[in-house]
Amino acid sequence: MGGIVECVPNVSEGRRADAIDRMADAIRSVEGIRLLDRTSDADHNRSVFTFAGAPDVVEAAAHALVDAALREVDLRTHTGEHPRIGAVDVVPFVPLAGTTMDECVAIARRFGRAVADRHSLPVYFYARAATRPERVRLPDIRKPQFEGLAAVIATTHVPDAGPAAVHPTAGAMVTGARPPLIAFNIELATSDVKVAKSIARAIRESSGGLPAIQALGFELSDPPRAQVSMNLLDTSVTSLATAWREVERRARAVGVDVLRGELIGLMPLDAALGVTADALRLDGLTRDRIIEAHFIE
Amino acid sequence: MGGIVECVPNVSEGRRADAIDRMADAIRSVEGIRLLDRTSDADHNRSVFTFAGAPDVVEAAAHALVDAALREVDLRTHTGEHPRIGAVDVVPFVPLAGTTMDECVAIARRFGRAVADRHSLPVYFYARAATRPERVRLPDIRKPQFEGLAAVIATTHVPDAGPAAVHPTAGAMVTGARPPLIAFNIELATSDVKVAKSIARAIRESSGGLPAIQALGFELSDPPRAQVSMNLLDTSVTSLATAWREVERRARAVGVDVLRGELIGLMPLDAALGVTADALRLDGLTRDRIIEAHFIE
Repeated sequence: MGGIVECVPNVSEGRRADAIDRMADAIRSVEGIRLLDRTSDADHNRSVFTFAGAPDVVEAAAHALVDAALREVDLRTHTGEHPRIGAVDVVPFVPLAGTTMDECVAIARRFGRAVADRHSLPVYFYARAATRPERVRLPDIRKPQFEGLAAVIATTHVPDAGPAAVHPTAGAMVTGARPPLIAFNIELATSDVKVAKSIARAIRESSGGLPAIQALGFELSDPPRAQVSMNLLDTSVTSLATAWREVERRARAVGVDVLRGELIGLMPLDAALGVTADALRLDGLTRDRIIEAHFIE
Repeated sequence: MGGIVECVPNVSEGRRADAIDRMADAIRSVEGIRLLDRTSDADHNRSVFTFAGAPDVVEAAAHALVDAALREVDLRTHTGEHPRIGAVDVVPFVPLAGTTMDECVAIARRFGRAVADRHSLPVYFYARAATRPERVRLPDIRKPQFEGLAAVIATTHVPDAGPAAVHPTAGAMVTGARPPLIAFNIELATSDVKVAKSIARAIRESSGGLPAIQALGFELSDPPRAQVSMNLLDTSVTSLATAWREVERRARAVGVDVLRGELIGLMPLDAALGVTADALRLDGLTRDRIIEAHFIE
């Protein structure tokens, strides 16, 4: 069983399909990479690419994407609803089967220094790769945005690698390492969105609920139905099974059944095995107990 | 995502460690094969090897094992508690991620014919590879055993491939294709083995319970505890989640809690994803939603 790393770069271009295609092609040009997903949003004027592979392959693909994005994006003329500090705004590396967070921290820092050198780009290390507490949270780093960065780059925003000078067209880049993120929704057997909003408020970390859980309540139409929409930021802290049970318990307490779950995008193998182990009350279900996991390259 | 086939041959030698080692070495000599498990039982005088890989690799490894076993085993001097008809008693091929039952049926028949030619060995096709209804069940084929086969090989036991003559030292061989088998135990919060035996009787197919489920009740010591021990023969017919719920429901009906599950050996990825999908009430959880599954060679 070898190691797989995932990389989920966010690029500040979500409108010009040809430019986005060229960025995707740059990723796919690296032998051995799998481009698992690409999502572009015109209002945000932003694209998210999800690719994975062996650590060195993923690092090479991230470089290929940066090279392409810096040719395509000019932040001087970029507008969009989503805050951004760079043409390549943020590049998280994520450990999957057979790799560790420490390895991803090392990859992010090496990648960040190489990008800084190659493109004279200021680079910040965030999340688990942060070297200072005020650099852990992405919004803190991104706060001045591209337009305001020059004013603070010599004071609060001295980069972790590269020149203390904003790149004229590409701004700056944030890179780091974080656990896999799972986007998961739960539909309730009620059309009353207040129930979903109340559960979301009760379970999310920001209002004192479950650690590493973000949650919002939404109203779906056709059929009208309330939905608890979650991001699980670290399933080693709060697992999918725990989040599910907590939503179910709180829904039942107000007489509402849970209808169904919905996985958005992909999930890592360990998260699924965690749910299986919980359901079958196994002491644990490691990847080596899954036949096919022995064939993950 | 490529295809993986599993092969679980049962060989009539469970005592001579050096001979069993040579058989394991023969399997491992095939490039690309993974020998996932080997279990030998001295009383049964029988060994079970579990290996997997790409279809052509698995077929080559099965041939290598047959070559080695026919050198090592002489049924004229073989004794053991377990019924057997051949030195290589039975060779099931099992479809895993990315392969189908039809492919495994084709592999089993091609493999069986090649072994028949190469070693002048009578070969029978069983389970999904059977060509006649009386050849579906292994016990029906194996009933005369090595010692009684000569008397019936021209009548009820005309082989599906190879000569209608018992091989002097190796007897005959059975090969075929079947779904993955999962061995799973559930511990109950009682020391009363009658509860486990009663649940096992209620859920097993042979006494009118769940299809594709075999079950027995056992008494564990230290601490004393009743256990329902199951074989799940086809989780597309009765899933692990269904079997779990049925045991839990019947235990609770007599006031007994379910303590924990225990997986014996390995399970296929799809079986684990089935449990995850059930627990999270997903409409389904296909392998392509698992990031690492895109890297199963």
